[in-house]
Amino acid sequence: MNATILDDLRAALPQLSLLTEAADLEHYGRDWTRRWTPAPLAIALPTTVEEIAAIVRWAREHKIALVPSGGRTGLSGGAVAANGELVLSLEKMRSTLEYDPVDRLLTVQAGMALETLRSIAAGHGLQYPVDFAARGSASIGGTVATNAGGIQVLRHGNTREWIAGLTVVDGRGEVLRLNRGLVKNSSGYDLRHLFVASEGTLGVIAEVTVRLADRDPPASTVLFALPSFAAIMPVFAALRDRLRLQSFEFFDACALKHVLHAGAHAPFDQPYPYYAIADVDADEAGLLEVFEACVNEGRVEDGLIAASDAQASALWRLREGITESLAPHTPYKNDVVVRTPRMPAFLAEAQSLLGAAYPDFEVAWFGHIGDGNLHINILKPAALSQADFVQACERATKLLSECLQRHGGSISAEHGIGLVKKPYLHQTRSDAEIAAMRGIKAVFDPDGIMNPGKVFD
Amino acid sequence: MNATILDDLRAALPQLSLLTEAADLEHYGRDWTRRWTPAPLAIALPTTVEEIAAIVRWAREHKIALVPSGGRTGLSGGAVAANGELVLSLEKMRSTLEYDPVDRLLTVQAGMALETLRSIAAGHGLQYPVDFAARGSASIGGTVATNAGGIQVLRHGNTREWIAGLTVVDGRGEVLRLNRGLVKNSSGYDLRHLFVASEGTLGVIAEVTVRLADRDPPASTVLFALPSFAAIMPVFAALRDRLRLQSFEFFDACALKHVLHAGAHAPFDQPYPYYAIADVDADEAGLLEVFEACVNEGRVEDGLIAASDAQASALWRLREGITESLAPHTPYKNDVVVRTPRMPAFLAEAQSLLGAAYPDFEVAWFGHIGDGNLHINILKPAALSQADFVQACERATKLLSECLQRHGGSISAEHGIGLVKKPYLHQTRSDAEIAAMRGIKAVFDPDGIMNPGKVFD
Repeated sequence: MNATILDDLRAALPQLSLLTEAADLEHYGRDWTRRWTPAPLAIALPTTVEEIAAIVRWAREHKIALVPSGGRTGLSGGAVAANGELVLSLEKMRSTLEYDPVDRLLTVQAGMALETLRSIAAGHGLQYPVDFAARGSASIGGTVATNAGGIQVLRHGNTREWIAGLTVVDGRGEVLRLNRGLVKNSSGYDLRHLFVASEGTLGVIAEVTVRLADRDPPASTVLFALPSFAAIMPVFAALRDRLRLQSFEFFDACALKHVLHAGAHAPFDQPYPYYAIADVDADEAGLLEVFEACVNEGRVEDGLIAASDAQASALWRLREGITESLAPHTPYKNDVVVRTPRMPAFLAEAQSLLGAAYPDFEVAWFGHIGDGNLHINILKPAALSQADFVQACERATKLLSECLQRHGGSISAEHGIGLVKKPYLHQTRSDAEIAAMRGIKAVFDPDGIMNPGKVFD
Repeated sequence: MNATILDDLRAALPQLSLLTEAADLEHYGRDWTRRWTPAPLAIALPTTVEEIAAIVRWAREHKIALVPSGGRTGLSGGAVAANGELVLSLEKMRSTLEYDPVDRLLTVQAGMALETLRSIAAGHGLQYPVDFAARGSASIGGTVATNAGGIQVLRHGNTREWIAGLTVVDGRGEVLRLNRGLVKNSSGYDLRHLFVASEGTLGVIAEVTVRLADRDPPASTVLFALPSFAAIMPVFAALRDRLRLQSFEFFDACALKHVLHAGAHAPFDQPYPYYAIADVDADEAGLLEVFEACVNEGRVEDGLIAASDAQASALWRLREGITESLAPHTPYKNDVVVRTPRMPAFLAEAQSLLGAAYPDFEVAWFGHIGDGNLHINILKPAALSQADFVQACERATKLLSECLQRHGGSISAEHGIGLVKKPYLHQTRSDAEIAAMRGIKAVFDPDGIMNPGKVFD
């Protein structure tokens, strides 16, 4: 029967590339979460908006679920296809469509990798200021679908802030050209912002128009060794109030240990409990003053200012290499956020809660923190089965999401809800909000074919 | 029967201030459009979110339409109550609720005037960077409901960009606390952005959390006299590419004539066809170079650089006084936007179209232009009746909206759709988009009581 259904699709779109080999089903059926067994029906690789619309019409007719798919670097299971879905991969849609130097808008197909888009921007003497470690694989469509954040949010905001227009094919099969690059447009509801962070549940993001920005001024990169978690926010505030900060990230001794184990060089002669790395507009005199003040206040133990681009890159590898260095330990990831004024109280409670929940587990803390976002990675002990490990982590995540609720935070800052965080959505969003989301999904996806089971049931 | 319905409301909320005098009905029933005859049922002035929710429940029960009401400075009829609606005025909800210096978020009740909010920000050494001439009367809730733009969009964006959280009461009577001030939050659909620019059709905006920003550096104000419309975009590009622009506005000889008639002083010894006013980060040497280059290229005829804050204010009054100086001529207003690269072609077509449509009418052109937004005001000849004048203008607006559609523009940049632009919405938004908007409205407002007849039917 599935073969007949696929034959219908082949008949409707004879040019469409359609993969059904077992290796392809496995490759395209999973994302970086590795927790679900891929089991898609097939993989479709359209090349035009019209082909996407035809696939959606076919899916509506045959009641086949669709999973939109970009670089599959997601960490929440949003691009997993484990239930006979058709994976709709944007892999063949990676071209530049238009660039206009007058308003500096760049329109690309949604399958383009973030790194490619950033290179194109640089070629125009400008920047696309969203950036994160998975830049080489993550597709721009995926960054829109999750409202990706990354290491430049502090200065430049999330993906949402840079989206001037979207072409989407919604679950009705309608092609919507949303906002069309206008700076100002008060003409009814802004559907563009509804598709940002919708995780494929409303439709397929096919084309993206982004704003480009002036390049940042040259930066000085500084690494601080900190005596305690409590020192992080005051050091952040001291830098922010006295210098122009481009980015501010932190990580703990556990995270550094794994990065060093993966081959990086130790920055200091001895280990410290916590580290902060920051880029500030190049102005070393001011930076040294802030550094000395922090040392005198007992908030900084040691520090390094990069003397060259190569040194700056080496320092940044300590932060950017964390996710990859932890991967062999199949970490359970939390991606939480609170308002920064609530951070100290939330941290104290979360550390005590997780310390009690995971007395025997290694926990790596790192993240953006200047924007309120923490990544908490629980590492699986080698002796424990994956299933037992996930079960133990889920118990703690329930407590953590209650703690977040008390502090007005969110269970997902930048990874999305997907399958992984779906059980905890109701602690971040109210019942009335979730009911409204279900209603909105029904408007754009009346047959429930768009990435069903993700975000909410 | 109406008296009985109001008695029910009085019984449910004995403390609620409820106005029914004819003068109040007229005062609260209209906005700045003055085209409809006010005829509300009554005016309710709640003081808390809970009172708003109780009013919505009462309205659902009795099928009474609600018109949310702020400063009623709107120019699209979005706050008009001409059909027996209950006006829900936020006038008594003007207080500050919270300010946190760590993340610089300010939460206020939605009835606070924009000018008050800007003063509070200044008191904290920061700025709220949305600003426009009606600042003294416009409520912050109204600026959210229309996604207000104004004179600082070029550098700082629209209202949307500054909204970190909203408390709304939707048409179901549900209190939604949206985004709650988080910088990053990828946890399902962002309903906050749906309420921005919703013009009261989804619910009542009750409380607003805004981000505050560092103050802009000191500015130099410059006024240019231009020989032609065609000179405006190249002068804008020259300033933007070589200097840090804070704002860029233009106006034509007709607009200046009316401002001078209202009492302003002429900036130059002779009139010119067009003028541009800009604030650039103070750097006079660079500014003079750009000025001289523009003169040499024949794009600037004369210029003034303000030598004091008083002179800068006097120059800005030439731009900011336009709307008030035109008011005695009951202008028909268009608030259009295209992408800036399309501006020259659009302008040529629009000028020829409007010249043919209004051979005998005075037309004042002004606006923000650096963000693609033009205001085109048609002045009513004294001898013509208001009805005949509006009818003539509507014929031309139909042509203009078709022209905008060809150039990918929008019929409303920052005023909203309301009643005034409703007939032209389908030329800016596709049928599939409008159908989705209707579906979204039904989710939040199942009984259709929230500002019915505005934006779309």
